[in-house]
Amino acid sequence: MERILGVDPGSRATGYGVIISDRGRLSFVACGVIKTTPTLPFAHRLNQIFNGINEVIQVHQPAVAAVEDVFLSTNPRSALKLGQARGAAVVAAMQNGLAVFDYSPKLVKQGVVGYGQAAKAQVQHMVRVLLELKGAPSSDAADALAVAICHANQLRL
Amino acid sequence: MERILGVDPGSRATGYGVIISDRGRLSFVACGVIKTTPTLPFAHRLNQIFNGINEVIQVHQPAVAAVEDVFLSTNPRSALKLGQARGAAVVAAMQNGLAVFDYSPKLVKQGVVGYGQAAKAQVQHMVRVLLELKGAPSSDAADALAVAICHANQLRL
Repeated sequence: MERILGVDPGSRATGYGVIISDRGRLSFVACGVIKTTPTLPFAHRLNQIFNGINEVIQVHQPAVAAVEDVFLSTNPRSALKLGQARGAAVVAAMQNGLAVFDYSPKLVKQGVVGYGQAAKAQVQHMVRVLLELKGAPSSDAADALAVAICHANQLRL
Repeated sequence: MERILGVDPGSRATGYGVIISDRGRLSFVACGVIKTTPTLPFAHRLNQIFNGINEVIQVHQPAVAAVEDVFLSTNPRSALKLGQARGAAVVAAMQNGLAVFDYSPKLVKQGVVGYGQAAKAQVQHMVRVLLELKGAPSSDAADALAVAICHANQLRL
């Protein structure tokens, strides 16, 4: 049995989701979105991501973190912002002693929906089905849960 | 009188430099390079950057951090790596309660050498002269000291 934290990093909104994988049987623990304050300087927003992930780990005590690799944007400026957000989330996990695993967006979609070009709504739907949720989580939270599910599937293989 | 930490983030090598600015009079405190282990997974290397900056802050107790904005590379893949390294360094400063300031490479060079397209060797030379060092620091450490000097000059203005 393993508690897995999934993270979908973003400078505006970082999704997180915690699941339990018990010999391939998945169950939902928690999910949500860390929203950063757009009016704050960027260093403060990175710190909000670090503190948010830190709090989720303190509360839910996952053993591993599966973090989505940031999207290879064609815009280097947004790639730099996304990269910094991801760095803040990864070090928050590392500082709490979690093992950190990286998954590409394509691999996550393949693992959850069945093919790598799946739309966001399909990811939300499949996350809801796989975790037997009553409602669909928000897009960012669903993406984070999908990364956690992807890691759980890798564990079984 | 203010203790300023300058940081030049990089995924392989992150330069740092600590100086004191006393009403515009600069003095050298320390400088060095945090080298990450290339064979380790990237999350561990980000954690090495966080821990390295954390240690420098613990030892030298700067009040503010001046962090170079990462170079807008034409390669989005390296921009993502650099971004993550910068994120790790920034949150290390924020977690220690430092105020964090961003400076573009161009502004740093302008402030230290006098023009924005200066070569690395010119930055090394001017840092040595301005801080009255006996030898030139390594390129990464010199860049970090240059960012700290740039911030000190901004304070005076």
